[in-house]
Amino acid sequence: MRTTLDCIPCFVRQALEAMRRLAGDEHATRRLLQDLLVDLSQMDFDQSPPMVGRRIHRRIRTLLGDDDPYRALKDRFNRHALQLYPALKRRVEEASDPFQAALRVAIAGNSIDFAALDDVTESSVNTLMESAWDRPLLGSPGGLRQAADAAPSILYLADNAGEIVFDRLLIERLPLDRVTVAVRGAPVINDATIEDARAAGLTELVDVIDNGSDVPGTVLEECSPAFRRRFDEAPLILAKGMGNYETLNTMSGHSVHFLLIAKCPLVAEHLGCRVGDFVASSNHAARLQKQGVRT
Amino acid sequence: MRTTLDCIPCFVRQALEAMRRLAGDEHATRRLLQDLLVDLSQMDFDQSPPMVGRRIHRRIRTLLGDDDPYRALKDRFNRHALQLYPALKRRVEEASDPFQAALRVAIAGNSIDFAALDDVTESSVNTLMESAWDRPLLGSPGGLRQAADAAPSILYLADNAGEIVFDRLLIERLPLDRVTVAVRGAPVINDATIEDARAAGLTELVDVIDNGSDVPGTVLEECSPAFRRRFDEAPLILAKGMGNYETLNTMSGHSVHFLLIAKCPLVAEHLGCRVGDFVASSNHAARLQKQGVRT
Repeated sequence: MRTTLDCIPCFVRQALEAMRRLAGDEHATRRLLQDLLVDLSQMDFDQSPPMVGRRIHRRIRTLLGDDDPYRALKDRFNRHALQLYPALKRRVEEASDPFQAALRVAIAGNSIDFAALDDVTESSVNTLMESAWDRPLLGSPGGLRQAADAAPSILYLADNAGEIVFDRLLIERLPLDRVTVAVRGAPVINDATIEDARAAGLTELVDVIDNGSDVPGTVLEECSPAFRRRFDEAPLILAKGMGNYETLNTMSGHSVHFLLIAKCPLVAEHLGCRVGDFVASSNHAARLQKQGVRT
Repeated sequence: MRTTLDCIPCFVRQALEAMRRLAGDEHATRRLLQDLLVDLSQMDFDQSPPMVGRRIHRRIRTLLGDDDPYRALKDRFNRHALQLYPALKRRVEEASDPFQAALRVAIAGNSIDFAALDDVTESSVNTLMESAWDRPLLGSPGGLRQAADAAPSILYLADNAGEIVFDRLLIERLPLDRVTVAVRGAPVINDATIEDARAAGLTELVDVIDNGSDVPGTVLEECSPAFRRRFDEAPLILAKGMGNYETLNTMSGHSVHFLLIAKCPLVAEHLGCRVGDFVASSNHAARLQKQGVRT
């Protein structure tokens, strides 16, 4: 997806909220915003929104002199998700369709997104998890299940810390010996890195690699050659979250299934759904309406 | 009120919406946003938000080559308000407290604000008018009534086109020979100018002057000497809308009553109320909580 004019006020708001959350220093926040405004005035609209997000968050890290300012938040939501994990696991196992139940939990976990949302709390996560079991799931979850069963290997692109613990419930429903989980190569916002995969217990369960990049999405030219090789060879890719959707949605040579909550009106419009919808959509179906029923 | 960092994403969003509404040309909209972003990066935060609003809308008018791009919208909402006027007038006259009923209608009219709001329609105006009779009115409407009865003259600062027709119902409850209505000196957003006062029938009813300025608020140093004289001599000023509040709220040498809907979280916080609240507040009471009961 290309960046649109509508993204600009949203970037400015996100940067303001991020600085307020991380620094609490109006002077530093003002300096960031002033730099950012000049930066945005010169931006290349052919870039995807996560490329702009990277620029904003590189600037925030430099201003704060902190390579990983979201570390405490990431730890906090990993801890919270790990507390929920045993009960969710039981509930998934007891569900009439454990695969789809796990898919719903993984998608609900996509609410732990400090880029698109500002009001993520333990309580908001709990509320969404509780409603996840009965929500419509747009796209082709059945198709995903079939593709996962048939694929000789699966590359699972994680999105955020905290969320990655909920991903584990879905990953446990996949053929573990054929799954590789990929995380970001360096800290950006609250996106999961190798540290979070470890906290979620994934490193003991499946292969985990990092993509070599600090883009909050998957821009192949920005990723390491090793990751690109794995990506190119992957017969099936599961991509979590809006950042991965915004950077991979035009990918046609691969089979990519996007698992996300639509949190922005433009992404929702692009997908053909509403803000807040749970989506499990394949890149081989143009829009959700064409992928048949809500399940 | 000074401009805060929170105003910046809002200015960018307002400029984007204004250009989309007026031009429908993505190329021109992009050019405006690019200029605006540089402009905002250098802005003086000691200015009030309406001063920044003026810069944005001067730029929009230049880019469009149109001195009054909101003219059609202003005419449309004048027409709509004039259609509602006879029935509202009857309802005010039949109310148990006609002054307070007229005050509510005038405040409800403040919803016709294309700066703070994007989704103003005839239908949204009708809905708000219908609910206006029973809404809590924060501040000191009783104090306003007493002040209006006692004042040897009253300066009424109008805000927007359309709204000015609803103002007429309140103005008709004031001693007409002592009222002067002031409008903006030149077009800016959908703020009322002399043309709108005429459309509302006010020029036949009371003295109408313009303030000589295109700021969507009242910044005295930007106003004409004639207006400033009238302002300085006015024993009682009724100021409609957020723009007038943001530019006059620190005024201590005058008795100013602000009549508005709080449409922005910062103004609401400043007033001590919630977004959406109807307010009739005097500058001689610091915050609404100190002005006693909701009526």
